[in-house]
Amino acid sequence: MAEDINDTVEREEDGYELDNRKVSAVRLAVAAGDAERLSEVLDPLHAADIADLLEQVDSGHRREILLLGATHIDGEVLSELDESIRDEVIEFLPKNVLDDAVRDLESDDVVDLIEDMEEPQQAAILDVLTDADRVAVEQALAYPEYSAGRLMQREVVAAPEHWNVGDAIDFLRSNKRELPEQFYHVFVVDPKMNPIGYVTLGKLLSTSRDVPMTSILEDSFKVIPVTQPESEVAYAFNQYHLISAPVVDDEGRLVGMITIDDAMIVLDEEHEEDILRLAGVGEGSLADRVIDTTKQRFPWLFVNLITAILASLVISQFEETIAQFVALAVLMPIVASMGGNAGTQSLTVAVRAIATKDLTGSNVWRVVRREALVGLVNGSIFAVVMGVVGVVWFGTPMLGVVIAVAMVLNLVIAGLAGILIPVTLDKFGIDPALASGAFVTTVTDVVGFFAFLGLAAAVLI
Amino acid sequence: MAEDINDTVEREEDGYELDNRKVSAVRLAVAAGDAERLSEVLDPLHAADIADLLEQVDSGHRREILLLGATHIDGEVLSELDESIRDEVIEFLPKNVLDDAVRDLESDDVVDLIEDMEEPQQAAILDVLTDADRVAVEQALAYPEYSAGRLMQREVVAAPEHWNVGDAIDFLRSNKRELPEQFYHVFVVDPKMNPIGYVTLGKLLSTSRDVPMTSILEDSFKVIPVTQPESEVAYAFNQYHLISAPVVDDEGRLVGMITIDDAMIVLDEEHEEDILRLAGVGEGSLADRVIDTTKQRFPWLFVNLITAILASLVISQFEETIAQFVALAVLMPIVASMGGNAGTQSLTVAVRAIATKDLTGSNVWRVVRREALVGLVNGSIFAVVMGVVGVVWFGTPMLGVVIAVAMVLNLVIAGLAGILIPVTLDKFGIDPALASGAFVTTVTDVVGFFAFLGLAAAVLI
Repeated sequence: MAEDINDTVEREEDGYELDNRKVSAVRLAVAAGDAERLSEVLDPLHAADIADLLEQVDSGHRREILLLGATHIDGEVLSELDESIRDEVIEFLPKNVLDDAVRDLESDDVVDLIEDMEEPQQAAILDVLTDADRVAVEQALAYPEYSAGRLMQREVVAAPEHWNVGDAIDFLRSNKRELPEQFYHVFVVDPKMNPIGYVTLGKLLSTSRDVPMTSILEDSFKVIPVTQPESEVAYAFNQYHLISAPVVDDEGRLVGMITIDDAMIVLDEEHEEDILRLAGVGEGSLADRVIDTTKQRFPWLFVNLITAILASLVISQFEETIAQFVALAVLMPIVASMGGNAGTQSLTVAVRAIATKDLTGSNVWRVVRREALVGLVNGSIFAVVMGVVGVVWFGTPMLGVVIAVAMVLNLVIAGLAGILIPVTLDKFGIDPALASGAFVTTVTDVVGFFAFLGLAAAVLI
Repeated sequence: MAEDINDTVEREEDGYELDNRKVSAVRLAVAAGDAERLSEVLDPLHAADIADLLEQVDSGHRREILLLGATHIDGEVLSELDESIRDEVIEFLPKNVLDDAVRDLESDDVVDLIEDMEEPQQAAILDVLTDADRVAVEQALAYPEYSAGRLMQREVVAAPEHWNVGDAIDFLRSNKRELPEQFYHVFVVDPKMNPIGYVTLGKLLSTSRDVPMTSILEDSFKVIPVTQPESEVAYAFNQYHLISAPVVDDEGRLVGMITIDDAMIVLDEEHEEDILRLAGVGEGSLADRVIDTTKQRFPWLFVNLITAILASLVISQFEETIAQFVALAVLMPIVASMGGNAGTQSLTVAVRAIATKDLTGSNVWRVVRREALVGLVNGSIFAVVMGVVGVVWFGTPMLGVVIAVAMVLNLVIAGLAGILIPVTLDKFGIDPALASGAFVTTVTDVVGFFAFLGLAAAVLI
């Protein structure tokens, strides 16, 4: 035991990051075919770090590590692995190692592991489980994807409402084998199995045996419907600082519980999704192959091509104007680019505020007005700057006026588009992080080029 | 009690979101000066929802709510409030309400509340606290900002290593007044107060009294240095699924603990910071005034103006070419825009991977190669598409060739810039989320215009 602890503390001082030295050590051990040395490096690593290690090396190395160090790949490592390489790892693990790893997992982790697998692969994994576990997994899979039902664990500790603290403690003592691996609350339920509150283990430990459970319930507690989307679950945990929460079915009966560590993972994934979707990247990880990454990025680039061609069509309406006055071609990207950036600013704030439920029907018009005003103020400042640049650079005062007016106009429109487009998409049930960017830049490009070139055609020629 | 529970459950069914009906009800009550009605609406709301409500109304309404419903603004509401309006709220709260609210808070929440305040305001709040609490807060403020020391709570439950389960339970029973409000582990410490492991409360409850504490320690446990940045703390909680972790000083002595709910808040804030910085928004919230928002967004727009002018300077080198061949002005934004988008894609993936420690020295060159290849493949596809568009639209085969070549070149460069720039910034200790965007678009604009117009000048004229 003492040795284990030293290992842990020593590792701690290195910082959390799986560092280069460890990755190199693994590479060397694998290159030398030295299973013992490999074990020495992998042994002190947390499952999450072993998973990261497997994600960071290329697929050739990965295969060698799996062959030489298979025994280190337990259930926990499997459930930490990024989906993109989990299938590959499962394929290359010796059957007996895989079976052990799967048996090792809690039912909610098995669900997470197999929910995206093809039928035959799924069946092969289910076969390994005990009957009780298999039933639990199959029931979880019956709930909609990304729902609380998929996220929850079925093992909970529930106490009838007539129990006192002593009853609950005696129950825990005599059922230690069936207790969840981690739990933080005892849920108190009525005779219909509806949860009516919970008691923290700390309170349970520090309260006399004869006190009724119902008199030490926590002030606030949240019940999660089994069909609730996991993103809402994560929001509730973050908003209300929940540690664990009971999950109930349609009739309000306790069917499982969700703990904050799982909610934190969902929150993290939701953020990742938002940030990647805003950049038009779709899902994807660094471990993906070139062809997969290319495919993920193609659609958004294609959408961008369409919007860019639209902008070009606007420009082509003014070919004659440009031919007479080439300075327009030099300056026009500035107006469009400033609009695009201002639009992205508003858009990002709006998308984030929608995700955190800070932007609602009750304040949307105030925010719209604010965005327009911000566009107006910043637009005016940059209009003056660019007006001066236009005059100084090209010596044509009217050109300065044209670019200034176009700048103000485009920055106001950018502010409005940046908020109205995501709000509208959200109303129609479309994820605003996914689609807003293309719409907003189309608007700012078209407005930017049209305002600048149109004004120029009217005024300069 | 029964009524409270009904309230909670009823509220639950409405969903988590503070809905419009409630905001309207508050507005109506305030307009009518009806304090009783206001209480009826605010009473069942969670502190986090009252805080959201205050953020969503404008500052006139906010003041009226504070006057009429001051008693509902307790410590918890204060600590849930967004910083941008917390100062305003504190200013308008009656002194006695504020004092009660502050006394209500745990020491870590007081720290969070006052760390950004001016000296006199800070002193006014510290004065309200008991001596013990004030000392605790002042000690926390002595740690660096955004460090584990600021985030931790000082109340912990520690057990000497020679205790058995019975000793620990007896200690909890006889010290219930001094226990932290929420705790999930008992930390086991050696005689020097160095933590050597922890025991979950669930294990404590289900184990016989005579079992030594050291024999039921959890497998893995993480110690957090008091000076560690809070972003690293949040990473560790998420990576290793920690629920609570001991915080230690330079000599490894236990000085406090951090719980997952606080780590989750930090993780959420870090994400918000990343997503807003990527869009060049800086800090800021919807509750900010127009002038504040304008100031936050101005710097990035200014940087963008500089990069746009740089791009214009490149274009101006080719004025003669454009004058002879106006189609170039029509098509050139397409090349730049595609490059900008592809660069943003790579950049976002890279920034996110750096944040999650998935992009490290051990795989950076593989990722760079991958980005270049993805740029090459997508660039080639779009080169063909645009080549055809160029020929069909303008009937000049060489124009098609020029745009195709420029497209491939810019997408490869975009992929490289999108990964190399954030990695380099990170190496120099600059947050890649903050500064990468400007660099990457400068590169793709300059390369896009230069390649396209330069090739055109060489080939077409």
